[in-house]
Amino acid sequence: VRARDLGITPGILPTGPLNAITDVKGVKVAHHTLKAPPAINTGATVIIPADGNLRQNPVPAAVYIANGYGKLAGISQIMELGEIETPIVLTNTLNVAEGIAATVEWTLAQPGNEDVRSVNAVVGETNDGFLNDIRARAVTKDQIKETLDKAVSGPVTEGAVGAGTGTVAFGWKGGIGTSSRRLPASLGGHTVGVLVQANYGGVLTIDGHKIGEQLDQYYLKDAVGTDASADGSIMIVVATDAPLSDRNLLRLAKRATVGLARTGSSMTNGSGDYILAFSTHPSVRRDNSADALDQNTLPNSRMSPLFQSVAEATEEAIYNALLMAEDTIGHRGTIKALPVKDVKNILMKSQ
Amino acid sequence: VRARDLGITPGILPTGPLNAITDVKGVKVAHHTLKAPPAINTGATVIIPADGNLRQNPVPAAVYIANGYGKLAGISQIMELGEIETPIVLTNTLNVAEGIAATVEWTLAQPGNEDVRSVNAVVGETNDGFLNDIRARAVTKDQIKETLDKAVSGPVTEGAVGAGTGTVAFGWKGGIGTSSRRLPASLGGHTVGVLVQANYGGVLTIDGHKIGEQLDQYYLKDAVGTDASADGSIMIVVATDAPLSDRNLLRLAKRATVGLARTGSSMTNGSGDYILAFSTHPSVRRDNSADALDQNTLPNSRMSPLFQSVAEATEEAIYNALLMAEDTIGHRGTIKALPVKDVKNILMKSQ
Amino acid sequence: VRARDLGITPGILPTGPLNAITDVKGVKVAHHTLKAPPAINTGATVIIPADGNLRQNPVPAAVYIANGYGKLAGISQIMELGEIETPIVLTNTLNVAEGIAATVEWTLAQPGNEDVRSVNAVVGETNDGFLNDIRARAVTKDQIKETLDKAVSGPVTEGAVGAGTGTVAFGWKGGIGTSSRRLPASLGGHTVGVLVQANYGGVLTIDGHKIGEQLDQYYLKDAVGTDASADGSIMIVVATDAPLSDRNLLRLAKRATVGLARTGSSMTNGSGDYILAFSTHPSVRRDNSADALDQNTLPNSRMSPLFQSVAEATEEAIYNALLMAEDTIGHRGTIKALPVKDVKNILMKSQ
Amino acid sequence: VRARDLGITPGILPTGPLNAITDVKGVKVAHHTLKAPPAINTGATVIIPADGNLRQNPVPAAVYIANGYGKLAGISQIMELGEIETPIVLTNTLNVAEGIAATVEWTLAQPGNEDVRSVNAVVGETNDGFLNDIRARAVTKDQIKETLDKAVSGPVTEGAVGAGTGTVAFGWKGGIGTSSRRLPASLGGHTVGVLVQANYGGVLTIDGHKIGEQLDQYYLKDAVGTDASADGSIMIVVATDAPLSDRNLLRLAKRATVGLARTGSSMTNGSGDYILAFSTHPSVRRDNSADALDQNTLPNSRMSPLFQSVAEATEEAIYNALLMAEDTIGHRGTIKALPVKDVKNILMKSQ
Repeated sequence: VRARDLGITPGILPTGPLNAITDVKGVKVAHHTLKAPPAINTGATVIIPADGNLRQNPVPAAVYIANGYGKLAGISQIMELGEIETPIVLTNTLNVAEGIAATVEWTLAQPGNEDVRSVNAVVGETNDGFLNDIRARAVTKDQIKETLDKAVSGPVTEGAVGAGTGTVAFGWKGGIGTSSRRLPASLGGHTVGVLVQANYGGVLTIDGHKIGEQLDQYYLKDAVGTDASADGSIMIVVATDAPLSDRNLLRLAKRATVGLARTGSSMTNGSGDYILAFSTHPSVRRDNSADALDQNTLPNSRMSPLFQSVAEATEEAIYNALLMAEDTIGHRGTIKALPVKDVKNILMKSQ
Repeated sequence: VRARDLGITPGILPTGPLNAITDVKGVKVAHHTLKAPPAINTGATVIIPADGNLRQNPVPAAVYIANGYGKLAGISQIMELGEIETPIVLTNTLNVAEGIAATVEWTLAQPGNEDVRSVNAVVGETNDGFLNDIRARAVTKDQIKETLDKAVSGPVTEGAVGAGTGTVAFGWKGGIGTSSRRLPASLGGHTVGVLVQANYGGVLTIDGHKIGEQLDQYYLKDAVGTDASADGSIMIVVATDAPLSDRNLLRLAKRATVGLARTGSSMTNGSGDYILAFSTHPSVRRDNSADALDQNTLPNSRMSPLFQSVAEATEEAIYNALLMAEDTIGHRGTIKALPVKDVKNILMKSQ
Repeated sequence: VRARDLGITPGILPTGPLNAITDVKGVKVAHHTLKAPPAINTGATVIIPADGNLRQNPVPAAVYIANGYGKLAGISQIMELGEIETPIVLTNTLNVAEGIAATVEWTLAQPGNEDVRSVNAVVGETNDGFLNDIRARAVTKDQIKETLDKAVSGPVTEGAVGAGTGTVAFGWKGGIGTSSRRLPASLGGHTVGVLVQANYGGVLTIDGHKIGEQLDQYYLKDAVGTDASADGSIMIVVATDAPLSDRNLLRLAKRATVGLARTGSSMTNGSGDYILAFSTHPSVRRDNSADALDQNTLPNSRMSPLFQSVAEATEEAIYNALLMAEDTIGHRGTIKALPVKDVKNILMKSQ
Repeated sequence: VRARDLGITPGILPTGPLNAITDVKGVKVAHHTLKAPPAINTGATVIIPADGNLRQNPVPAAVYIANGYGKLAGISQIMELGEIETPIVLTNTLNVAEGIAATVEWTLAQPGNEDVRSVNAVVGETNDGFLNDIRARAVTKDQIKETLDKAVSGPVTEGAVGAGTGTVAFGWKGGIGTSSRRLPASLGGHTVGVLVQANYGGVLTIDGHKIGEQLDQYYLKDAVGTDASADGSIMIVVATDAPLSDRNLLRLAKRATVGLARTGSSMTNGSGDYILAFSTHPSVRRDNSADALDQNTLPNSRMSPLFQSVAEATEEAIYNALLMAEDTIGHRGTIKALPVKDVKNILMKSQ
């Protein structure tokens, strides 16, 4: 089930129609799921930010690093130029190379890119090395290239799929989750969509309810210094149709950590917690060959409702990732899905 | 009342004996409260990080800027050198100059500083311009110098005192709050103490309970773009006796935003949200005249329980700031304290 | 003399008509010089970035910190919002407080600012504690307010004036210097102007000539670890009429270090090396009350000639600061001006 | 020839015995050169920072991004943890993926790493797409793995080899260059070594001599906005045996830009200019399984002579890269080496 099916509605703002990152027009998603249990539980998820040739017409973008223990590729060019010029690929920690190779070759092969000799691939990862024999490096360049070709708009499959096939969160099965918020017209009417690859931990709280403590499974429960149950990382991708400068996209990205915090993360040492944010608004689309950019952006003073939106959508996307996942038999053991029935009971008790 | 008096115990870790920043040995605090209602409601709060001559023997330190819409002085030298060489002063936005002048003169006058010709004053602020006639710039250099002289260890007065005299949070009266966490011996036994000057807003949540929504007072309630009710800033000061490098102090500072997020902030555009963190451990104390520093620090892999500590203590310090405040008649109107009775009722309903 | 009077013409690009920061239309400058030798040699220099009410209509801006051992105030808000809302004040290290107080009061008093309750003062400094009894804190708030009122466009006085009255550079008398570059129309025709407060050191090189070594005065000459002759700081202010985003202003600011490096600095530990950059172009001027900003900016691909400009103008501004200075009798000794005749001889030898 | 063979001795400090990065004990280097003219001129260069198992015992490290238009992998983890846990690989822009895959597989296969499931590969690049058919992605994972196995201490081959096989600098043939500085005992006696992959441009200056202008080949010569002759990137790797914290390694890395600036770069928009720095001193070596790190580091106040060292060594390494290169027939044309005879003549004229 999704969080809303259980009456979980974090925050105060309405969702978009799909309650998914694809509520932002032009955003496309696809998964490649690799399941050969018990050894192999991994895959890739791709997000194509916008229509058209991204290499010639990048989208303004930003990356915020909440905890940099991770291998996200493409960081410095996003920061320097304020833009993303490729799809975003998510996969496991040891297959980042294949994600880059796929993105490079796919981009070189796009019509209009015959003279391109530089590609800044953006490839994120989390470590699925408990459920997946990650040292086998099972994801291939060709699988990712094919996944890029099949990305579509519309509803997004959640749970143990794509780059979330082998992830674990709060000791339960993690996965891919998504959510969105759409501001009322009086606040601009813009949409913010979020997709997460959830593979981290802490003390699980769902919309304020102390699920982790009540189900007796949480970080530091045994107060052992070597307890690493909270580690593991989360990749968060934020899309918006609001016309934002790259600086304000960075500020927006940062607010995804607000949602992350509310789920019970304290961004532990071993968790690579990254947020990518981009705008699809035509007025801020870049043109590499232009002499000047005529951009109509929101001023700083209009940002706060968008900040609230990304906080809420990130929180809910994470709940969706957990609630849509399923028990998974893996390389080093079995991980149970969050028990929906128990969660329901806890929620009911406090009505 | 303090949060614990109502049974509010955010997180899973125990507090220190005072549940205050002064649980970290050597930390001293004092307030100067300026109340001449309705026009003047302001003041200053000072934190002296450690015993001894700070200018000759700075403490390792870091500053994390969650949202930089503010005037915190001293930032770049803390970042460059990884240390704080003075007390920390908190006051209102338009009296930062007086805070710097006071810190400079106080430092020049300390025994042993006869040849000092450079002082990096660290002065934070929030804007109390609703309850206080801030344009009057009422806080004086001499008041702050005297406050520096009277800083003491022991319990810390909370609520509408010192730099919190005129602050507002979530539409209720804000103020100064403090809290601490002490790790069990198995996790190192270190203490993390937090002091906040709370003057921001959002959708108030107390330990997961949607207080703001239930009391019908929260950011974007009227969905008006010009609604600035969430703005206003928070200064967070984090002390620890764990022997940390400045890099790990920066990571620690960042995790205070986790606690901030859980109270219902989405770090709005107009809110200057800053965190200062320092370590008092003798092994990491700096010596400006030494040829080498022999430091015994915690490795990265030991940081996570400290991250959990600062998240929890920040959250609770904010609740204390709100719950200890009182109704205040001010320059542009009256601000009510959070109604403790109503909060109690909401908490009881969901037991 | 100015550098060009000696035939020193760093780089390949032409200057503006004044070869000064005021070649950027709208920029105004004034000095306040305090000379009461030997004890007092200090002052303040103010730069007003543009016409109009800066608080209501900030200029896009950035700050780059090459070495953060200094006290520049206002940093975080410039970074967060990408703008400057006040004049820029330069003074000595221990009078930053007076610079802030003056800027705040001056801004509050501007017509149209009757309701302003927040001011982000931008006050930079270098340490003139050798020639000036800096602990006396001789510069007053009122002096700086008066200086703000008398800022004008047109030629800029250089050398031992204003905030440069007591500075020392490379062991010779430093001071204020300025220079500019104007791009040919084919490269956009934009102007970049630079003003420096030079108070640092190293191994002086002038347009490639090893002046420091030939005059036998340079950093590490005696290879003594405690030799601090290279310390002391430089504040660099960069103005341009090119329509730049704040991100590209940050990139522009960073390139001022190229010019700094060419003069023989290696940005020593004790030197606070800061660069502020802003754009005066009307199309990028901010409007705090607007619903949207319609901005016509240069794309990343047009930045490189501007980078070359700021490198060249910074280098030349520093030479002007040195060459226009004069022997100064001060608090702890006398500092000679760079011997112009000797420099001339060295330059001639290598023709 | 190397720069010193022509009497070019930038700066004031002595070199180490090899005048190479390998003057820092424990540093190992190897090249893989791919030459199949005209189409293929590319390769890889690897630097192994220190003896022992880097994954279990990382070296403290930092990365400074002077201009982030590039694809350097591994950035965020270096910044977050302050350490490098693998060799450093340099190659061409479109073969970063192969560099990562090679580093990952090589690390997984090291004795003691049987349980490793996370590897932060550090792979830098410059774009050799003029002399090399870069879209062919000619460098393979296996070639890089073999190169890692053959890295050795001792003299380093310079010029058009390894990752420098196809690079171009200032319109002449670029390549790999190296240099070092050794401080006198009174300044600590430490060594700083630098290796560069030079592929950028600007207005070439050699030790102050305006070579670019005198040979009539420099950036903006024709003042055409689309002139990209200055673009292309430089990767700079800095090794030192001084016991430095990661923060001071970041400061050290930043000073490599001083040397870069002196060669005539203004860090143009399209140039990815990156510096990696690490310390090999045993006292700062990390231990991932330790409860505490006992580190004996240099204080901030001892850094300046090291800053001077890295500036000088970077400048000279770049001259070596240029002077050791040779004419190269490539994919889109031929690039001449810098004419040593002409350079010699220019140098002699100004004696």
